[in-house]
Amino acid sequence: MSELTHPLIIDGWFREISDEYFPGQGFMLKVEKILYCSKSKFQDILVFKSTNFGNVLVLDGIIQVTERDEFAYQEMISHIPLFAHPNPERVLVIGGGDGGVLREIIKHDNVKEAILVEIDDMVIQLSKKYLPNMSKSYENEKVKVVLDDGFKYLKEIHDKDDMKFDVIITDSSDPEGPAEAFFQQGYFNLLNNALNKDGIVISMASENIWLNLNNLKNLKNVCENIFPIVKTCYCTIPSYTSGQISLMVCGKNKEIDITKANREVKGEFKYYNSKIHEASFILPTWADEMLNN
Amino acid sequence: MSELTHPLIIDGWFREISDEYFPGQGFMLKVEKILYCSKSKFQDILVFKSTNFGNVLVLDGIIQVTERDEFAYQEMISHIPLFAHPNPERVLVIGGGDGGVLREIIKHDNVKEAILVEIDDMVIQLSKKYLPNMSKSYENEKVKVVLDDGFKYLKEIHDKDDMKFDVIITDSSDPEGPAEAFFQQGYFNLLNNALNKDGIVISMASENIWLNLNNLKNLKNVCENIFPIVKTCYCTIPSYTSGQISLMVCGKNKEIDITKANREVKGEFKYYNSKIHEASFILPTWADEMLNN
Repeated sequence: MSELTHPLIIDGWFREISDEYFPGQGFMLKVEKILYCSKSKFQDILVFKSTNFGNVLVLDGIIQVTERDEFAYQEMISHIPLFAHPNPERVLVIGGGDGGVLREIIKHDNVKEAILVEIDDMVIQLSKKYLPNMSKSYENEKVKVVLDDGFKYLKEIHDKDDMKFDVIITDSSDPEGPAEAFFQQGYFNLLNNALNKDGIVISMASENIWLNLNNLKNLKNVCENIFPIVKTCYCTIPSYTSGQISLMVCGKNKEIDITKANREVKGEFKYYNSKIHEASFILPTWADEMLNN
Repeated sequence: MSELTHPLIIDGWFREISDEYFPGQGFMLKVEKILYCSKSKFQDILVFKSTNFGNVLVLDGIIQVTERDEFAYQEMISHIPLFAHPNPERVLVIGGGDGGVLREIIKHDNVKEAILVEIDDMVIQLSKKYLPNMSKSYENEKVKVVLDDGFKYLKEIHDKDDMKFDVIITDSSDPEGPAEAFFQQGYFNLLNNALNKDGIVISMASENIWLNLNNLKNLKNVCENIFPIVKTCYCTIPSYTSGQISLMVCGKNKEIDITKANREVKGEFKYYNSKIHEASFILPTWADEMLNN
């Protein structure tokens, strides 16, 4: 059997470069072995074993998760809305096919049902094979998987009163490609419609304060047209561009302070704690002035 | 005149790779033009104009500053000790030849004198030529420059009662090379001796929580053998490995809470504010447990 190759892997290093998203800078991971590469119906998929970051999932050339640092992102995008909410029972995940967000959601005893809507079954299958610590959550009885486009799914449940959620997590890839609609007003309108009265939405912003702050501000403006409370937080994570990613948190009930845990924090978390929940909303001066004034 | 070349710049990209400090990962910056490269008496020096990060100073292959994000590091390593201290009048900088930390120090009206001890005059001269927004601080009348090894300088002032400082900032390069001694107990003993009774020391830890947490813990243990108060904080900065750097803060007077500003925060700061001063000491769970328990 011949060895697998991928155009982004040269001389044993995977190179992440994007003139559109982060011009002039790049990130590299040393490759021990390419485990899988193909084009699915929706995107270019690459899985490799790295020398120091465990197994790595790459979609359309952008790192989605590495086994070494994925917990930071998965924990923060899950537990910020889940601990801010007074009683999250029904949770919807748009994207998140690797299963890592599901793994965090089911740590909450309050949660009765977690529905994951993923467009690309190949991501789920590859995660089950190569990212077992994330995909193990698929076996949990609270979890239900829908193979569908998230935008289409939200339109279908639009008028169904029994299909409302307490927390919705958008764990998508970047806006170019299948996730493009997830950064536009129509999507956030659908999210708002799908929420119960105390509902909280959190979205991977595909940005951080060090990259294109205007994009982040524009996304915040879109959300502020719809939700009474919109805040930006972040988590640090070495394998994402510039070492961090911003998350946009929107609350439907302005009486609920989404910048802190509103329930007792119990459970095993490697990154999340109640203090870092609050600290993650504190931004450096220039970003704070741009986003919050 | 032939174009300059440097072995770390290939196909128009500067590659930062280190098997010792951050095995298996690398950072890249696109190069517009190499401005300077040589070996000084102490280290390999490279200055280039990048396409998106302004001018970049590299010592022994490791990025020291880029014009785009240097303010994050310079502000946090300066204003955390300076605003924690009730009245910082005399400040010592070990290293910091680019002048960026000096630029921040002289924003404080309290400060009467800032002495910078830099081993490599070439760094100062190149900064004056290629990093004018940092080196402009050299013209300030409060500033005094000593061209010397910081360790040797501290030994020389050891018994001089009129050579004590309120704040000492170690803004060195990494422990390999000329800065090696700055990460060992003998150095922190000298720092302690050079401080006034309310004195505060802050040191670039050449590490972050995502790299070698054991190194950070060892450095903290070294400091705790000497100072009654030792805390770890961080700032985010894209051009440093993994997008952040840890800072070790040591206080001589345990009545002074170094994790917050103890004076009114006035001045123009792009990154620093009193809230982020406090937030920068809040660590993710696994790092907090390792470092603070």
